[in-house]
Amino acid sequence: METYDVIIIGGAAAGLTASLYTARQGLKTLVLTKDIGGQALLTNDIQNYPGIMQIGGFELMTEFQKQSASYGTEFRYDEVVSIENKPGEKIVSTRSGEYSCTALILAFGKTPRDLGVPGEQEMKGHGVSYCAVCDGPIFKNRIVSVAGVGDHALQAAVYLAGVASKVNLILPGSEVRGDDSLVSAVNSDNKIVKAFGRKVKSIRGDKSVKSLILQKSDGSEAEEVQTDALFVEMGYIARTDFIKGIVNLNKENEIITDKFGGTSAEGIFAAGDVTDVPYKQAVISAGQGSIAALSAYNYIQKLRGKPVSKTDWKSVKPVNQ
Amino acid sequence: METYDVIIIGGAAAGLTASLYTARQGLKTLVLTKDIGGQALLTNDIQNYPGIMQIGGFELMTEFQKQSASYGTEFRYDEVVSIENKPGEKIVSTRSGEYSCTALILAFGKTPRDLGVPGEQEMKGHGVSYCAVCDGPIFKNRIVSVAGVGDHALQAAVYLAGVASKVNLILPGSEVRGDDSLVSAVNSDNKIVKAFGRKVKSIRGDKSVKSLILQKSDGSEAEEVQTDALFVEMGYIARTDFIKGIVNLNKENEIITDKFGGTSAEGIFAAGDVTDVPYKQAVISAGQGSIAALSAYNYIQKLRGKPVSKTDWKSVKPVNQ
Repeated sequence: METYDVIIIGGAAAGLTASLYTARQGLKTLVLTKDIGGQALLTNDIQNYPGIMQIGGFELMTEFQKQSASYGTEFRYDEVVSIENKPGEKIVSTRSGEYSCTALILAFGKTPRDLGVPGEQEMKGHGVSYCAVCDGPIFKNRIVSVAGVGDHALQAAVYLAGVASKVNLILPGSEVRGDDSLVSAVNSDNKIVKAFGRKVKSIRGDKSVKSLILQKSDGSEAEEVQTDALFVEMGYIARTDFIKGIVNLNKENEIITDKFGGTSAEGIFAAGDVTDVPYKQAVISAGQGSIAALSAYNYIQKLRGKPVSKTDWKSVKPVNQ
Repeated sequence: METYDVIIIGGAAAGLTASLYTARQGLKTLVLTKDIGGQALLTNDIQNYPGIMQIGGFELMTEFQKQSASYGTEFRYDEVVSIENKPGEKIVSTRSGEYSCTALILAFGKTPRDLGVPGEQEMKGHGVSYCAVCDGPIFKNRIVSVAGVGDHALQAAVYLAGVASKVNLILPGSEVRGDDSLVSAVNSDNKIVKAFGRKVKSIRGDKSVKSLILQKSDGSEAEEVQTDALFVEMGYIARTDFIKGIVNLNKENEIITDKFGGTSAEGIFAAGDVTDVPYKQAVISAGQGSIAALSAYNYIQKLRGKPVSKTDWKSVKPVNQ
């Protein structure tokens, strides 16, 4: 079993920043992740990451990874299935292997919430998508549908209207509500066809999506809508089942953290969207990743009888801010 | 009196990020600060701000400011002397004016701690400096001294040895302690002359620093050291006297904040090094600035009877991550 000082689960803003910090402190660091970038990949136009005027999510996350790798961070693209918290050691099991570490940082973000209707699981990746920006271009000049709630759904519809020939926007309420600029964008785009007061009852298709059966708010069946794709925008949930019982979660299943990025388990830290941090932003996740990493470093130093660093970290490395 | 939605005191990583976020949300935003950049200016080589491989502190902070200004943030270079917390309104008085705002964000960082010896106040800016990177180049090929504690002092000595002809390193302990790489850099540099087990008793000079009188740990007078400059590296303190009684402080005089960047006073938020955040890093301050800004926005929306934004902010702006 390979052994690391620090294993970080998750390869987006929080996890990559944490790995940058632990690797820079000379700790043997492994990032276990299904992909690089996480939710930053959902946008190709980030304008509020301070220090960079405008950048695509993919490009920003690629920079994060390159920077971390330059200090020796290792990356494995794998899915974690379980964690065992032993005294002084944590065992992380993935689909294809087992790894051991002294400190563990949980930074695997959130995953899209399913719609929960017949046909959804079968046609995931065959017309059912949870990422308009990622998969929208596949449906250029074809008919797509968006089902969801809140600004997520409006944003997806506006984006897809720039790509597809027609966008059915399926919303449970009787009118569009949300961010002012999004609402007016939806209302002024004649490619967006409103199916309001409606929910998806089931998804029909064979190997790929063909149509949606809608239902009204009273549950009665409504029209059938022809479509080549369904983009689900139901928000995001923390998939923390596999660590329940190891770290404390709040009622949204987010990991409860303290000011130090610490969880209820000694030597296990957490950062980013998977935690109870109130707002979800790339720069906030990055900041949290840095905090968790510095706390993990202090934890390891203490275990090894070495001096921990003071709270003012500006000068840990000679040229480090 | 000019009125703003949000006033931010402080123009470094936390304050500039906060202003970027509030200005992007369409709030009329003023940054009141003595200078731009704060402690990031102390280094010309930041390698751990994620997304940017290497950048000078001044350059990074200039980018932060440009980005914020592009959304309409106003800047005034002034010193805040007092704050009045009225119901629904805060009055901020500076040396030259008075401003009113609905929400206030405190992000003015920390300031260097004085040595507290005779001659220090008189010769500030005339050989007595608190920033080796800023003022070191003035003393190229001349004799300088560093008095202080911890890695700050070692870092300054190593930096100055690359500029000055000789560096007297005055430390209270009998040996060098701190970050391994700094300790070995100090020990291997023959330009650094060790004055250990010593403190500065007084600074002598006329219009500028000429020499230092040192004392031993038992208080007895030690040697006089000729020097053209004294760099004080005693760490940093939160100068929060002017807001004592308005927001709760911890025993280090740092502003106590909650997960939302909220303080004990309604409508007053805080971010960055001036708060009780455990580690002091540009990316952590930026993350905190974003949190405080989003909470200030929610506070104002609520006051005005408008919908507050949900905790998941990814889609507040159409193209915002």
